[in-house]
Amino acid sequence: MKTSIDRAAIAALDHNDPLRSKREAFILPQGVIYLDGNSLGPVSKAALRELKTAAEQEWGEGLIRSWNRAGWFDSPATLGDRLARLIGAAPGETVITDTTSINIYKAVHAGLNLRPGRSVMVADGADFPTDIYMIEGVASVRPDMSLKLTGIDAPRIEDLLSDDVAVVLVNHVDYRTGELRDMAALTGRIHDVGAIAIWDLCHSAGVLKVDLNADGADFAVGCTYKYLNGGPGAPAFVFAAKRHHGKLSQPLAGWWGHASPFAFERSFRPGDGIRPMLCGTQPILSMRALAGALEVWDDVALDQLRDKSLGLTDLFIALVEEGCAGFGVTLAAPRERAKRGSQVSFRHPHGYEIMQALIERGVIGDFRSPDYMRFGFAPLYLSYADIFAAATILQDVLANNAWRASRFAMRGTVT
Amino acid sequence: MKTSIDRAAIAALDHNDPLRSKREAFILPQGVIYLDGNSLGPVSKAALRELKTAAEQEWGEGLIRSWNRAGWFDSPATLGDRLARLIGAAPGETVITDTTSINIYKAVHAGLNLRPGRSVMVADGADFPTDIYMIEGVASVRPDMSLKLTGIDAPRIEDLLSDDVAVVLVNHVDYRTGELRDMAALTGRIHDVGAIAIWDLCHSAGVLKVDLNADGADFAVGCTYKYLNGGPGAPAFVFAAKRHHGKLSQPLAGWWGHASPFAFERSFRPGDGIRPMLCGTQPILSMRALAGALEVWDDVALDQLRDKSLGLTDLFIALVEEGCAGFGVTLAAPRERAKRGSQVSFRHPHGYEIMQALIERGVIGDFRSPDYMRFGFAPLYLSYADIFAAATILQDVLANNAWRASRFAMRGTVT
Repeated sequence: MKTSIDRAAIAALDHNDPLRSKREAFILPQGVIYLDGNSLGPVSKAALRELKTAAEQEWGEGLIRSWNRAGWFDSPATLGDRLARLIGAAPGETVITDTTSINIYKAVHAGLNLRPGRSVMVADGADFPTDIYMIEGVASVRPDMSLKLTGIDAPRIEDLLSDDVAVVLVNHVDYRTGELRDMAALTGRIHDVGAIAIWDLCHSAGVLKVDLNADGADFAVGCTYKYLNGGPGAPAFVFAAKRHHGKLSQPLAGWWGHASPFAFERSFRPGDGIRPMLCGTQPILSMRALAGALEVWDDVALDQLRDKSLGLTDLFIALVEEGCAGFGVTLAAPRERAKRGSQVSFRHPHGYEIMQALIERGVIGDFRSPDYMRFGFAPLYLSYADIFAAATILQDVLANNAWRASRFAMRGTVT
Repeated sequence: MKTSIDRAAIAALDHNDPLRSKREAFILPQGVIYLDGNSLGPVSKAALRELKTAAEQEWGEGLIRSWNRAGWFDSPATLGDRLARLIGAAPGETVITDTTSINIYKAVHAGLNLRPGRSVMVADGADFPTDIYMIEGVASVRPDMSLKLTGIDAPRIEDLLSDDVAVVLVNHVDYRTGELRDMAALTGRIHDVGAIAIWDLCHSAGVLKVDLNADGADFAVGCTYKYLNGGPGAPAFVFAAKRHHGKLSQPLAGWWGHASPFAFERSFRPGDGIRPMLCGTQPILSMRALAGALEVWDDVALDQLRDKSLGLTDLFIALVEEGCAGFGVTLAAPRERAKRGSQVSFRHPHGYEIMQALIERGVIGDFRSPDYMRFGFAPLYLSYADIFAAATILQDVLANNAWRASRFAMRGTVT
């Protein structure tokens, strides 16, 4: 690739990268540059080790006794506390449990229960669809509430805020464009009208310096299988700020959320703290792979993480804009660093076919309808040299029209 | 143990057991007689193999590509169909997903949506508590519905049935006593008043000849980590009879239940068939251990399973009643075979301490408040000789007051 950014500069960036040794914690396939950690993070050695211990020793040998001895029963809280530093939560404010979709349903209900008498829920129409589906689900059982969406009812969240609003659900980073919202500023506006702010951190936890308490968030949810590398479909998390504890209630009130789960009482009594956000028995094997994945994070400084994320995305934007000019590729991610998550999207009318050609050449990103090629940049296992190589391959695919020959080019379905 | 049942008779029972070779499919710890498969089933070789493949090859090497290539995305339906034969479901009626608690919430809502205009929900007050908590959770968002419970509002389910009843939630086997309900008869009574029957199969799937369609069930839920041996907290299942397909709706309507999940549409459109019972992204590692566990079942004849279950429980009841007479132990399980699940409970004022003493001696059962010692009998990995040995150890603990010396005797908490 001919570019003004020379290989010596790339090598210097890698040489000075304080996170470069973290790559050894992961097992990455040969011949792959993995730019899809924003969809499914790779496996770590620690995750495999924990999974093996959980399956062979704790399940195999310990059997039922491991619910207590191996800490299985407490793992939603202990893993939640382990995650806490990465999202700016205090101990006792986060549990790992269920799925993001289900945690959204819980958090929205819990928010409504904190703001009785109000009649409006607000969400961003550009949020990841399941967020909207779940808040529609809440609306289906709360006919007293109406749902207002940006893109339909008004252009911006701020335009929909009024004293009628009970809860606002918003994605921290846009899943298509990678645009980052200002959590502190928007939460402040939401609080100005007395509403509850629920943040979806799916595309920011594990790659930004998320600071829920400093920014005043009321609730947050997110998945652990993207930048946190917890494994396919690893259990999600839900955060509730301490000031709401003692007042948390939501209808998915199962036995794990009970004040005394093993007393087998006939009526529900909510546990204290964050516990009322729990519901039923959690998938321990998936939970334990996540425990290993989180171990990798224990000594990661979030300032260094964010610096490297911006360095990687800066480099990719510069290389693609310089090397692929004239091939119809348009940047869809924010150029401004303060508004950028760790994902860079480019649009192209044949984005689907181009992405398939890239994948065939070992550069794995993904595609989102209608024309977004998404590239995720995970600072723990990517080098600046990887970014240079990926941009070079993209240029090659475009310059040689290689995507027209992709064996997937005619398929027309989305993977 | 001195008993009228001699060792030769026990050996003959094992010799003639058509399921005896199935034990080799499992990895059981040395020195343990495991009578707690009604709480957490043991690991199988196939489960470990699938887990390893899913983690190392599919996640590690395939990464994001495995959602399609390895069938991850379709696994709720493919595994649901694999389970179907064991519960008397037709293909396309069952999905493996989420937790039992959450599936109860979905099924109750779906049932209510099939019976608009009715005002009563009925459940058994002796059901496993989370069942009641979840239907209370539905009641919390449906102020138009009232909840009636046996033990509070009337002695029996039948006494609570009227034309006002929309849904009835009932446990197939009582989690404390092991008593089995007559699914066909009770479903018939529920249908007589036009209500929807929701069966919880947690304590019957994988150990009885459950026949949902023959018995007319509308919905069923259950866990897969007890007799099905899916692993700790393995995803649960939900069944909806085909006659209700096309009319299924419930508020946990996430993107996995959408008609076109990868089109990322802004509003929810339900998928066809059983799909509207799905919600969010599933824990694939736990799901794949379950896939291995279900493989073990593929050639098991359910008549043989039920025969052996009754043989094991008959033997245990006979041995304990003969050998432990005079020690204050009372049978809490039905003596009548037709009313017996695969669990035998005995009550004793010091049941907790006795169970701890048994566990210290390698006989693992469990305890449920206030005084139930539960013993689960899983025909795939238990022999009649195991039952004889367990009963002998129980007699020894009681005859020698060994439970008074248990190091757990003073703890007073429940495990």
